[in-house]
Amino acid sequence: MPVLNLRSDFTAAPDLTEQMQEIGHRARAAARKIAQASAQAKDVALRQVAECLRASREAILAENARDVAAAKASGQTQALIDRLTLDEGRLAAMADAVAKIGALPDPVGRQLAAFERPNGLLIERIAVPLGVVGVIFESRPNVTADAGALCLKAGNAAILRAGSDSHRTAMAIARAMREGLEAAGLPADAVQIVPTRDRAAVGAMLSGLDGCIDVIVPRGGRGLVERVQSEAKVPVFAHLDGICHVYVAAGADLDMARTLVINSKMRRTGICGAAETLLVDAAVAETHLAPLVTALIEAGCSVRGDEATQAVDARVTAATEIDWRTEYLDAIIAVKVVDGLDAAIAHIEANGSHHTDAIVTADAAEATRFLAEVDSAIVTHNASTQFADGGEFGFGAEIGIATGRMHARGPVGVEQLTTFKYRVHGRGQTRP
Amino acid sequence: MPVLNLRSDFTAAPDLTEQMQEIGHRARAAARKIAQASAQAKDVALRQVAECLRASREAILAENARDVAAAKASGQTQALIDRLTLDEGRLAAMADAVAKIGALPDPVGRQLAAFERPNGLLIERIAVPLGVVGVIFESRPNVTADAGALCLKAGNAAILRAGSDSHRTAMAIARAMREGLEAAGLPADAVQIVPTRDRAAVGAMLSGLDGCIDVIVPRGGRGLVERVQSEAKVPVFAHLDGICHVYVAAGADLDMARTLVINSKMRRTGICGAAETLLVDAAVAETHLAPLVTALIEAGCSVRGDEATQAVDARVTAATEIDWRTEYLDAIIAVKVVDGLDAAIAHIEANGSHHTDAIVTADAAEATRFLAEVDSAIVTHNASTQFADGGEFGFGAEIGIATGRMHARGPVGVEQLTTFKYRVHGRGQTRP
Repeated sequence: MPVLNLRSDFTAAPDLTEQMQEIGHRARAAARKIAQASAQAKDVALRQVAECLRASREAILAENARDVAAAKASGQTQALIDRLTLDEGRLAAMADAVAKIGALPDPVGRQLAAFERPNGLLIERIAVPLGVVGVIFESRPNVTADAGALCLKAGNAAILRAGSDSHRTAMAIARAMREGLEAAGLPADAVQIVPTRDRAAVGAMLSGLDGCIDVIVPRGGRGLVERVQSEAKVPVFAHLDGICHVYVAAGADLDMARTLVINSKMRRTGICGAAETLLVDAAVAETHLAPLVTALIEAGCSVRGDEATQAVDARVTAATEIDWRTEYLDAIIAVKVVDGLDAAIAHIEANGSHHTDAIVTADAAEATRFLAEVDSAIVTHNASTQFADGGEFGFGAEIGIATGRMHARGPVGVEQLTTFKYRVHGRGQTRP
Repeated sequence: MPVLNLRSDFTAAPDLTEQMQEIGHRARAAARKIAQASAQAKDVALRQVAECLRASREAILAENARDVAAAKASGQTQALIDRLTLDEGRLAAMADAVAKIGALPDPVGRQLAAFERPNGLLIERIAVPLGVVGVIFESRPNVTADAGALCLKAGNAAILRAGSDSHRTAMAIARAMREGLEAAGLPADAVQIVPTRDRAAVGAMLSGLDGCIDVIVPRGGRGLVERVQSEAKVPVFAHLDGICHVYVAAGADLDMARTLVINSKMRRTGICGAAETLLVDAAVAETHLAPLVTALIEAGCSVRGDEATQAVDARVTAATEIDWRTEYLDAIIAVKVVDGLDAAIAHIEANGSHHTDAIVTADAAEATRFLAEVDSAIVTHNASTQFADGGEFGFGAEIGIATGRMHARGPVGVEQLTTFKYRVHGRGQTRP
């Protein structure tokens, strides 16, 4: 689809502009209130939200059934329909996740630094909410509850825009969440769903709604993320690709390498932390390459390799330049023999996506250099790339994984949904 | 000047685009090297840079004399010529500042967090450099040395664009800095000056040079900052206005209030941390308002007030709505009587610029609410607004003050010129 068409799709008509602006102003006003809510008030509210989600089970599942029927009628893929479909179990899990987010430690009000100056001023750096978070997602309706709850926990208001497939379900979920907030005495407008399927609403959000949105989080496929990153006038927390590498270094134990390569690639192939490229140091290629390739193929993975890799197994097909930069999200891996640590780091710098990269080695010096020099959000030593996840990091939940350099990097949990301010405590000091 | 003209001014010709792209690639390559430099290597290099600035005294002053002569010939204001002019003393101070930045604690490699997971994974959040910082400044040539040194200390490369008035001086300063870097074995391209006066170079920088600039810092007047904020495709650390308030609350001691108001407004009127509006609680207006207004007028400040303020002194002129949103940067203050803390907070929210706001009070509860609810980068209690400064905060130096919510807020010192990555240390763990 040509870019110009997309852009004009996103240009809002005057009525919609006004409607979106109203949503923005309501969010900003709600954000000011929720920023001052105590840890306990937010915890209570999120438990209340979870309760309302459970109590609204029938309404939510009924709306979901309509979304699913419409998706089937319009010939959507089975994968999309799977992502879209809720059932009693998924809905209960969604409510439990909200309550669990409520029980996380409060990220607001943390003292990040404190220093006393020679003139007696005490200066504190204190975590405060970011403000208003815009979340744009596609077919997974549970993002409404997850992202909304994470934003609330960090004292932010959320403006959520569901994909048209999940629109009815998302509206029903948001309705339940707003009931929960009101019951707990917090402003319902801290969670708003854009009430229209009009794609121009996305363009309005990307413009920042005249200063009413502080950050945008896209949750969905590459197309969505790319569009948001190129058009947003406000900061974006996202990753475009997860081209994750496992580097089996000179000091790698073969058994550990095999276990980590298989887990990094094959545990789940469709997630952003799945490995897409295996690099093997030439120093251990003779002993390690063939067993690693065999293990991958036996695990059901197609292997595309450079010449050295093709030479060890006839089932390996030839990799092209494009393979080194491809996020397969499938049971396919690109394999290359590299000439030592520097070559591995250079390959990752040239082809990677600054998401998650792993080294396997028993040599501490090699590991230290890899962890220091590979410029990715997450670097692991002797650990699977599939640990790239807010839950696995102990953050309770994540709103996404960011590969940008500003503010948030790696799994974005409630802490990264805050910013800070300085409080200066004096006794009448003046500046000389 | 119409916006469209400015934009077309900034559109780069193909040759310039190529030249700027080359600068970007060199900066990125240098950033990768300097990111790995040890604390000691950077400290030694910055001392070497300081030495080269001292040794290049004659060349720098000669180029500066040419800039000053050109500025005089083109009829520039005396204020601009003052900002532009270097002498032996200013040059020595510039070199000393660079050496002092070298001696600051290394912000890179700090462990910001560390946690062990139940599966035995040790996860660290470690400070790493931001990457490439673009600095766009106007007539103060010392920004070249200050900003360059701060970027280097945080392991970043800097691309500096001087205003055309200070172009020759900035080039001479950068030449000396690059010599110092080379002498110390670090890449000279970690400090580059855009070698052309062509304003289209600014547009190229604001586009991010195809991913080669990570953040832009504008240093100059409101016009520059506004243009950078509206056109930049990359994050910006800046403040547009410093509309700082002093709120004299019900619990304020009159003597302390007088001292803090005079210092906040009159110590230096031209800095962004200078107070522009005085709010006085109606509860103490009868006792405090007249003495505060008298003190301001006697200190040489013009007072523009609401009706209550006009009533206490005939020399007070009438404030209009515009005054509450004006950054005078001069010996003028707007004064208003407000009905308690909530009204003060609401006034600041509606009219302020989220820079620095102060409360004067002996009442701890009043202070706590003000510090919590005023949503500014810096909030002070019983302390002058003029402390809004990286040096006063103990940061050694600052590259500017940011009022945005992302990444950096308040004085931006070397710590905020870093980002972070996660290092995951395992023993072969796989994700179940």
